[in-house]
Order: sequence, then C-alpha cells, then structure tokens
Amino acid sequence: MKWQYQQATDAVSQNRKNLNDFEALVKANSRDMDTAWIVLCGALVFFMQAGFAMLEAGIVHPKNVTNILFKNMIDASIAAIAFWLLGYGFAFGSDSGGFIGKCGSACYFGLKDVYNGAGDGMGSSDGWEKWFFQWAFAGAAATIVAGAVCERTKLEAYFIYSVFLSTFMYPVIVHWVWGYGWLSAWGAYPDSNGVARPIFNKDTRSNGLIDFAGSGVVHMVGGFCGLVGAIIAGARRGRFGPDGSVNTLFDGNNTLQALGVFILWFGWYGFNCGSTLMISGGAANVAGKVAVNMTISAASAAITATFLAKALQGHYNISMGLNGVLAGLVGITANCAVVDPWMAFLIGFVAALILYGGHYLLLALRIDDPCDASVVHGFCGMWGIWATGIFCTDKNVQYAGYPNANEACGSGEQFGVQVVGSLVIAAWTIGMSVMLFLFIDKTIGIRVSAEVEEAGLDISEHGVAPSYEQQPQVPSRLCPRVWTFLQVH
Amino acid sequence: MKWQYQQATDAVSQNRKNLNDFEALVKANSRDMDTAWIVLCGALVFFMQAGFAMLEAGIVHPKNVTNILFKNMIDASIAAIAFWLLGYGFAFGSDSGGFIGKCGSACYFGLKDVYNGAGDGMGSSDGWEKWFFQWAFAGAAATIVAGAVCERTKLEAYFIYSVFLSTFMYPVIVHWVWGYGWLSAWGAYPDSNGVARPIFNKDTRSNGLIDFAGSGVVHMVGGFCGLVGAIIAGARRGRFGPDGSVNTLFDGNNTLQALGVFILWFGWYGFNCGSTLMISGGAANVAGKVAVNMTISAASAAITATFLAKALQGHYNISMGLNGVLAGLVGITANCAVVDPWMAFLIGFVAALILYGGHYLLLALRIDDPCDASVVHGFCGMWGIWATGIFCTDKNVQYAGYPNANEACGSGEQFGVQVVGSLVIAAWTIGMSVMLFLFIDKTIGIRVSAEVEEAGLDISEHGVAPSYEQQPQVPSRLCPRVWTFLQVH
Amino acid sequence: MKWQYQQATDAVSQNRKNLNDFEALVKANSRDMDTAWIVLCGALVFFMQAGFAMLEAGIVHPKNVTNILFKNMIDASIAAIAFWLLGYGFAFGSDSGGFIGKCGSACYFGLKDVYNGAGDGMGSSDGWEKWFFQWAFAGAAATIVAGAVCERTKLEAYFIYSVFLSTFMYPVIVHWVWGYGWLSAWGAYPDSNGVARPIFNKDTRSNGLIDFAGSGVVHMVGGFCGLVGAIIAGARRGRFGPDGSVNTLFDGNNTLQALGVFILWFGWYGFNCGSTLMISGGAANVAGKVAVNMTISAASAAITATFLAKALQGHYNISMGLNGVLAGLVGITANCAVVDPWMAFLIGFVAALILYGGHYLLLALRIDDPCDASVVHGFCGMWGIWATGIFCTDKNVQYAGYPNANEACGSGEQFGVQVVGSLVIAAWTIGMSVMLFLFIDKTIGIRVSAEVEEAGLDISEHGVAPSYEQQPQVPSRLCPRVWTFLQVH
Repeated sequence: MKWQYQQATDAVSQNRKNLNDFEALVKANSRDMDTAWIVLCGALVFFMQAGFAMLEAGIVHPKNVTNILFKNMIDASIAAIAFWLLGYGFAFGSDSGGFIGKCGSACYFGLKDVYNGAGDGMGSSDGWEKWFFQWAFAGAAATIVAGAVCERTKLEAYFIYSVFLSTFMYPVIVHWVWGYGWLSAWGAYPDSNGVARPIFNKDTRSNGLIDFAGSGVVHMVGGFCGLVGAIIAGARRGRFGPDGSVNTLFDGNNTLQALGVFILWFGWYGFNCGSTLMISGGAANVAGKVAVNMTISAASAAITATFLAKALQGHYNISMGLNGVLAGLVGITANCAVVDPWMAFLIGFVAALILYGGHYLLLALRIDDPCDASVVHGFCGMWGIWATGIFCTDKNVQYAGYPNANEACGSGEQFGVQVVGSLVIAAWTIGMSVMLFLFIDKTIGIRVSAEVEEAGLDISEHGVAPSYEQQPQVPSRLCPRVWTFLQVH
Repeated sequence: MKWQYQQATDAVSQNRKNLNDFEALVKANSRDMDTAWIVLCGALVFFMQAGFAMLEAGIVHPKNVTNILFKNMIDASIAAIAFWLLGYGFAFGSDSGGFIGKCGSACYFGLKDVYNGAGDGMGSSDGWEKWFFQWAFAGAAATIVAGAVCERTKLEAYFIYSVFLSTFMYPVIVHWVWGYGWLSAWGAYPDSNGVARPIFNKDTRSNGLIDFAGSGVVHMVGGFCGLVGAIIAGARRGRFGPDGSVNTLFDGNNTLQALGVFILWFGWYGFNCGSTLMISGGAANVAGKVAVNMTISAASAAITATFLAKALQGHYNISMGLNGVLAGLVGITANCAVVDPWMAFLIGFVAALILYGGHYLLLALRIDDPCDASVVHGFCGMWGIWATGIFCTDKNVQYAGYPNANEACGSGEQFGVQVVGSLVIAAWTIGMSVMLFLFIDKTIGIRVSAEVEEAGLDISEHGVAPSYEQQPQVPSRLCPRVWTFLQVH
Repeated sequence: MKWQYQQATDAVSQNRKNLNDFEALVKANSRDMDTAWIVLCGALVFFMQAGFAMLEAGIVHPKNVTNILFKNMIDASIAAIAFWLLGYGFAFGSDSGGFIGKCGSACYFGLKDVYNGAGDGMGSSDGWEKWFFQWAFAGAAATIVAGAVCERTKLEAYFIYSVFLSTFMYPVIVHWVWGYGWLSAWGAYPDSNGVARPIFNKDTRSNGLIDFAGSGVVHMVGGFCGLVGAIIAGARRGRFGPDGSVNTLFDGNNTLQALGVFILWFGWYGFNCGSTLMISGGAANVAGKVAVNMTISAASAAITATFLAKALQGHYNISMGLNGVLAGLVGITANCAVVDPWMAFLIGFVAALILYGGHYLLLALRIDDPCDASVVHGFCGMWGIWATGIFCTDKNVQYAGYPNANEACGSGEQFGVQVVGSLVIAAWTIGMSVMLFLFIDKTIGIRVSAEVEEAGLDISEHGVAPSYEQQPQVPSRLCPRVWTFLQVH
C-alpha cells in the first residue's frame, strides 16, 4: 500500500510538472501569436506610406510629383533613424504619469533594453515588434504634414521637420497618451481609494484620455503641424487671386488619388485593428469590432461627402468622396474599440460635414492646404477624440479592455477629459510647430523662390521633367453657391 | 497516512482545476488566432476593391476613368451600409434548410446579436470579424457588375443596383449555400438514417452544394448580373458597326490593368485561404492547400490564354493573359480545397478556353461587356462549380472538413448537385437582375444620353477632364481569323 | 480506504489522459499558427511581383511598358508550373549534404509527398504552405533577371530562361543552402565529436552558410543571371555613344517607380520576417527583430544614396534613393536575424555605396543594365552574405535559432564560410547563365531586330501603342564629375 501510495504521488507530481510545462507552452503560443499580429499589422501600417504617396502625387501639379514622392520615401526613412535613436525612448522610456520617457528601469534609446534582451517592460515578447509598429505610426504622422505644405516648400525644410517631429514633438504626445504619461487611459485604474475615474488618478498621476489608435496622437499631430506649416509657408502662387477668387491650380489625377485612398483604407485595418497590441486573451474580438466600426464610419462618410458635393456643387466630386473615406477613418480611429456600429455611422456622417465645412473655412481664411490634410487629419482627428467622449459607454470601454470601471462615460466626465486632452494635444502641436517652422523660415527659409515654384520643384530639385502633361482644365470645382455665401458673409 | 492521502487528493484536485484553466486558455488561443486570421484575410479581400478599380480604370476610355473609380468607392460604401442594416441578417439569420435568414434564435439585422454580445451561433468568437469578412465578399460581388455595364450607365443606376444586390439578391444566395440554407454543403451530414449524401438531407432539409469560396455565390452572381445589365443597357455607341464589324473603342492602359490584376491575385489569397473561416484544428493545412491550388490554376490559365492569343491573333495579348489569371482564379475558387494540384492545372486550362470562347461568343451575340466581367466571373464561375463535381474526391472533400462521407464524388451524385446548384444560382441571379435593370430603365433610365456618352461620363457627371490623352491607336486587337469564322458560320 | 485510493488513482489517470489531449491541442495550435504565418507572408512575397512590375514599368521606355508587364505576369506563372513539377523537388527532396534533391524518403516532384499526405519531413504541417512560400521566392528570383535584360530581349528568351531558372538553376542553390545541402547552416550542428562549427561537419556533410532570407540564394542568383544576360544581349541601341558618352534613353516614370518600391518594401516584410518559417516557440521574436533591422537598413541606405546623389550630381535623384531602399533591403536579407540595429544601419550605408559604385562601374564597363538589377540584387546580395560574416555574433546567431554554438563568428571562421559560399553561388549562377544565354542566342537569338527595338516591343510583340507620350527630356542625370573621372582614369 505504501509503495502504491508513493507511485500515485509520483504520478500526481509528474502531472503537475507536465502541467507547468504545458502552461509555459500555452503562454508562449499566446505571446507568439501576439507578436506575429503586430508584425503583420505593422507592415500594413507601413504600406500606408504608399497610400499617402499616391494620394499626394494625385493631387499636386505634375511638375511637383517627383518631389512629393521623394519626400515620402525620405520621411519614412528619417523617421526610422530618428525614432530608433531617440524618439522611441522618449515615447516609452521609464516614467509614470509624467512628461517624457527617460532612461530608468526601462531605456529604449537606440533600442537599448530590447537589444540587451532585458525585456521590454510592456509584455512578454522581447519587444522588437513594438518598435516596428510604433515606427510605422511615427512615419504616418510625419508624412501627413507634407500634404499641407506641398508645392512651395524647400526639401531641406521637410528634412528638418521630419527629424524634429519624429525625434521629439510626436514622441512626447505618444508618451502622454500611450506611454503611461499624464494623459494615459491607464490612469483610470482604481486608485488607492478604489476610485477608477478618468480624472486625475493620484497613484498613476495620470488622466484617462481614450485615444485607441491615434485620432489625436497621430492625426491631430500631423494635421495641426501641417496647418501651421501651410500658414507660415503661405499660399501657393496664384491660389488666391487679388480679387478674393480661389483658383484651382491643377485638376488632379483621380486614378492616383483613388489608388492612394484604397491603399490607405487597406493599411488602416492594420493601424486600428493592430492597436489592440495583442490578439490573445480575447483581444481578437476587439480587433474584429474595430474592423466593423471603421468600415461603417468610412462608408458613411464617403456616402455623405458624395451627396453633399452633389447637392452643393451640382455634380459628383470624387476628391471629396475620397477625402470623405479618410475623414471617416480619422474620426473613428480614437474610438473604434468603444462605440457601437450605429455610432460609427454617425461619427462618419459628422466627419464628412467637418470635412466640407473645414475645406471652405480654410479657403475663407485664405489658408492654402493643397491636400486638405489639416482638415482631414487635424479637424476630423479632434472630432474623433470628442466623439469618443460623446458616444462611449462603460460597457464598451470595458469590452475594449480599458480599466475605466465607473460611470465616467455616462456622467460626461470622460467627455470632459477628451475635450481637455484634445486641446492640450492641439496646443502642444501648434506651439511646437510655430517654433519649428519659424526657425526653419529664419534660417534656411521655408519657401522656394518664385521661379522654382513656377517651374516646379521636380526640375529644380530633382532635374526631371514633369511627370505627365497637364490635361486641359475644366472650370473650378469649387462650389460657387457656398463660395459666394462665404465671401458675402 | 490519512493526512498524506488527503494531501495527495488535494494535489489531484488542484491539477484538475489547473487543467480546466489551461484547457480554457488553449481554446481561447484557438479562438483568437481564428479571429485574427479572418480579420487579416478580410483586409486582403477588401484590398481587391483597389484591384477592381485599377483593372477597370485601365480598360475604360480615359474620359470615363473618374466615373469608374468613383463607382468603386461608392459601391464598397453602399455595400457596407446595406450589408450592416439588412444583408448580413438575411444571409446568416436563423433558418435551417430554407430560403432566407430571419430574426429568430439568431438575429443579425444591424448586427443585433453581435452587438448585444449574445454570441454568434457560428463559433466561439463574438462574431464581429465574420461580418467584416462577409462584407468584403459582398463588396466584391457588387463591384464585378460595374465592369460589364461601364461607360454608358447612369451613376444613379449603380446606386440602385448596389443597394439591391447587397441588401437582398446576394445575401439570399449566401444564405442558401453558406448560411445553412437549402443548398448548404452541411446538408451532407449524416441524416437520422446515417446517410451522408449531398442530395436532400431530411434532417437539415438541405442539399450539399460545395462552393468553397464562392465561384457561384460571389462570381456567378456578379457576372450574370453584369451580363443582364450589359444586355439591357445595350452596347456602347460605336462598339458594333452597322456592317457587323466590332470596333475597339480604346486600347486600354496596360499598366493599370496589370496593377489591378496583381492586386486582385494578392487579395485573392485572403478570399480563398480565408474561406477556411478558421485556422485552428488543422484548418491551416487546408488554407495552405488552397494557396497552392489557386496559384497553379492562375498560372495555368495565364499561360494558356497567352499562347492561345499568340496562336489565334499572331501576337501576344496582355489583356487576355491578365484576364486569364482572373479566369483561373475564378474557376478554382469553388473547389480550391477539394482538388489536387494537377486538377487545379486542368481547371485553369479549361477556364482559359472558356474565357476565349466566351469573349467571342459575346461579340457574336453583339453583347457589349467592356471588361468581359460576365465571361471571367459568370461563365468561369459556373465552370468552377461544375469542376468541383468533376474533380472532387471523397478523400479531398473530407480533408477540407466537409461532412460528405459517402461515395458521392465518385458516383457522380456530387456532380449532379453542383450542376443543379449552379443552374439555380444562375436562374435566381438572372431573374432578379432582369427585374432590377428593367425597373431602373423604366424609372430613372439606365443609360446616359448620347451626348454624355460621347463626351464621357467624367466631364458630365464629375466635372473633370479625361484622365489622360488617348494614345494613337493601332488596328483592332480582335482576332481576324476567329472573327471571320464567327461571321461566316 | 482501498476504494478511496482507487478513486484517487483513477482521477490521476484521468488528469494524465486529459493532459495528453491538451498537449496535442497546444501543439496543434503552434502548428496552425505557424502555417497561417507562412501563408500570409507568402502572399506578401507574391505581392512583390506587383512591385517589380511597377518598378520596371517605371524605368523602361513607354514603348516597352506592356512587354515588361507581360513578362512579369508570365514569369510568375511559369515559375509556378516549373516549381510545382520539378523545382521544389530538386530544392527540398531527399539528400543530405549533397548537390541536389532527389526522390527518396521524401519526394516533392509534383508535390508528390505532400499530395499523398505522407508528411513533409520538415515539420508537422502537411507542408502545402511551404511550397507556396518557396514558389513566391522562386518567382522573385526569376523576375529580377528581367530588369537587367529589358528593352531589347525577345519574349521567347524570357520564357526559356524562366523555365530553366525555376526548374533547375535556382532550386539547386536553394537545396545547397536551405534544403540541407552542402552549404546548409544546419551543417553547424555539433558533429559526432561535439564540434559545432560552420566548416565541414562530417555528419551532415555540410558547411554552415548563413543566408537567412536569401541575399545569396534569391538576389545574387537573380542579379548575376541578369548581369550575364545584359552582357550577352549587349547594350540597348544608343545607350553608349561611339565617343564613349552615355545617353539616358528615357527619364523614367517616377510615380510608377515609387509605387513599385513601396510595394516591394511592404512585401519584403513577408520575405524576411516569414523566413523564420514559423512563429511558435519564440520564433516570433526573431520575426520582430528582422522587421526592425530591415527597416533601419532600408532607411539608412535610402538616406545615404539620397545625399550621395545630391553631393555628386548637384541635385537629388529619386531613382537613386529608391534603388537605395532596395539595396539596403537586399543587403540585410541574409543577416537580418543575426545582427544588431546599429549593424543594420552600417549594412545599409555600405549597400548604398555599393549601389553607387556598381552603377558607375557598369557604365565604365559599358554594360547596360537598365534597372541596375545586377547592382542592386547581385552586388548588394553578395555584400549581404559577406556582412553576415562580418557582423554576426554567436549570441545573435543562437537567438535566431542557428545551431552554431562555437566561436565561429568571433574567430572569422563564419566570415570565411560566407565568402567562399558567396563565390560558389556566383560561380554557379554565372556559369549556368553563360550556358543558358549562349544557348538562347545560338538557337532562337536573344535579341530583337534593330527595327523592333527602335519601334518598341509593345507594338511589335503585343500590337499596342506606347503606354504614354514621352515627356520632353532634361539633360542626362548622370553625374558629370564622376563620369569624367571614370573616363579619364
């Protein structure tokens, strides 16, 4: 009996030992599928660079196409080097509830801790894939700016702002919102009094802004930086007549624009779904919900923008429809994980209205943003942050894995945090951008000479002829009714 | 001893408890990797929209390019809203062996049950990703039609058919074949008599049609709807001369066509491989087999079409080669999981012959389908359904996870079900499409005026100039030998 | 007590039984996620065909665009059939440490063993996905050649070399390095004396060359084959003036080039990250590291090439920048898993120097490679193999899962193996290519007639007009300073 008992006990211990082995195996599977998910989604986000390149190449005059393509190639590259050496360290380095990441218990300058195999402090993989995913986001932020300042800005100005944005300006915001800084949604964890609310948590020293995939962090930063750049650079020659008229300088290449928007829409599934940052533990459900919501918002905004253009201008306007897709996607990016499909529909609808209003607002203010980047990414990005507060429900917030356990969504507290957060992001971006572009203008000069602008940047900076002949133009696509209204009032 | 015994028993119970925890963890991993797979494949399927846009933009006259791009953007958007509100509910709602999904134990109108977290009745995830994947398919079906009716159809006609197709016409077929309706392959489960055959199962009340990824459900629906549209809209002005001659209206932009086909081929790996609907439990093996078979079929059809064109026309014809790729892919889509590679080779070979024959058949019938969409998607889609019955083996059918256990493949019973199923799908599609397009024609009119067609849809509907100058044309690419033969006989 | 004891023992056995079930389930999850990873990465690698097509279409004269697109479509197709019937069997068939795969314990001609469900001998999936992934690589190797010989080569010559390359020339190298042949990195497993070194292992009879994703296997083979083809075909008419001048025959379409490079960069994440061949067991960490390293190398090379062009030519040169991206990616491909990010930065930097030097070297030698394919893929591919030996560390090599356990990296032994291996690959490729292209030239003739070349291949071979009007040209982009230097010295 004794012997039998020992045998049984050994068998139990053996089972226990195997259980521990299998537990490790199961967790390794979770970790590895999470990592693969981020690598694949990161590649999709990177592919958005091709989308931006085609979209912008389809908007600028053929004499400036090579320049904008070149810019896209080089800002993704600059972002890689800058984000590797410094940016990622500022964004995700040690610091809780504060302003900027540093070199403490975790240090990511030059990917130091990942490289040393010291773990990443953010999960159980070694963390390589996290840099890759975040770099692709940084590159998107940098490239958005270009759409607003194109066709009259020196290439060297692009180099300088790409370096500054990827190194410092953008990573600081990332740190605040996603890197456990003072605006991190993880600030809504129950504090030592058991209170889990978005407004200041004294333990984490942070406020719980929800910006799931970056309407604020990525798009507002790119959009508002572009707005400042467009203002400081000034309008393209001939864009605004002395009599207040607005001239269409080039009709655009719709094939390239459409290709660009389809690529962006495709890559955006990596951008938003991948922002779950993992798929195990049920996060894949959230990724699925994100895909649904962003599809509905994009569709809603595209349809709204299309029929708005038809109603106001008398004919369809593919550029407005395509920008509608982007506006809908930007608007849903902050909240795709925390709203229901019918809310996504409304968010897209409003984004299209903002697109339209913003487009004419810029014209009325005589601000020249050739790609409407500040409207699509800046204004609609801010709408995305606000919409998160308007539409979120506690149930949805918890479904997405946020720690917010109290009645913050229902009570309007979350909305308050969202509004304040968006204003802070706007203030930081505008403040930094003003300094940046004034510095550029005072040193190397932001703008090319009138002769270069007239001849096109391709011939002067790249030594190549225009990409194709300009087609005979049809009368301006601006809506005369709206325009007259704006001028009269 | 007693105490020792208790200790051992406790250890056993603890092991059991942990086992249960780990079992849940393992199954959660399976569920989450399945969901991620569908999200990623769904994104690939969506990207096919870009492929269709580029392909069609490369075929239509430059004066109609903006219009076709616009149509692509808007039909994907309309499909999203229509499929969200109604289509998905009709396709996958409660109903066994019947005609259409309803609101019963499962209700998917407005994604109701997914949104309520009531489970999806189709697996263990919450089911968001299933809507996303199916929407991408619905968008593909809708966009195929456009290729057949382009260059002379009113935009408003596109809007109407997009809504109807995504809301009702397509979801009904989906319900029949994939939504446990009366043509579902799951009808081959053993009935209460232990018989597992594709012909009427009295328990599930369904017949076991095998259409793995939609040669019938997606491509035949799009292709035959397009055929009806092309006939009712009539030929483009000048396409057929009064003397029976066929005129090439535009030589095509081969760069855009090639880009479109490469994007389609790429996205098709999501379309077919993702139709495993999961990867765990060995489904990934099926996905791998699907990738192999569709590659071989596409390659076989491309090579066949290429050398056929060379033999018949005296020079190579890239459009035929590119359409060959698509024909091979459409033909393999129904059966990619249930055939061997050498069968895939033959399926592609025959698809290329059908492409060629169908192209000249339409010309002989004076039906004008500018993109050969009804040939590539409709005829080759039907071939795909038939080929499934011709080439399937019981071993392969079971490898793909179908319940078909008896000698249905060898005996020809499966082939019979495939032929009848394809005819039913064709009949439904043609019947509905005739009603649809006649309704459109009697109300708003399907066709633009002669002046608009002459000037191009871009200038009239969108207010933009042609996308590029038409190149000097070379003599018609139609094969004179075949053409003469067709006219004489 | 006895009865209680029995009960406890039964519970232990039941736990054991469930444990075994769960172990199988966990391992099935690992296998299925590995397979899904390879299918998705394989699709990304296939998409590089679209990248090559756009890149090459953006470089050749508009009169040859259709021809190059056609070639891309057909060589991917030929590679599929050839690799299915023979190539894959030569690459991965039974044979250890030898020259070529055969039909032994494993037989892959016509996918025999996979098709028979006999397992693949290389893992636990059925192995379909492995063929798919490897086919996409074979297609890439085949298509690289075309860039070097374009604009004057007969289509039939493409057909012949595609068949030969995909059937025999490329699979032999794959067998040597990746198929357990005599250059396999798995040759560094401890031999029967316990020695784990890259130089000849007497048990596996192989030498441990490290070429992670194919700088040598894929890019050198494509690049050197192209170099031989370019030499044997001779320069395009008018490329080199009788006075030694170099003429730019066409300025290029930068939009297509940029689109092509962005697509290639995107697909390359599948190419390199997927070369882990699995993600479970921590391989996902390696995939993440690969993504980081290749991003940094691409960025470093793009920036270097950009500023080098500016310094030497006086203006930016987008073609050089874009080729810089590719050079950086080719250079990192062999070693992306075994170097640190700062090494990746240096590898990209040197790759850009090689690109520049190689470009002018070919001109000085009056070798006409329109796409610089032999420089980007051949020379930078060789640099990638060498860089692996220069920068690898034992720690990194083991992190990537290579068996190399000794001080091979530090001692220079690995570097020696890399140099010898690269020379052997070059010798095989050049030897085979000389035979191949001389055979083609002696039989059907490699080159089109002067009239066809003048008129363009599109009109003569495909019966279509040039794709677009040539733009007015600006003076040659060749760098006068460097050129003068090369001519004087």
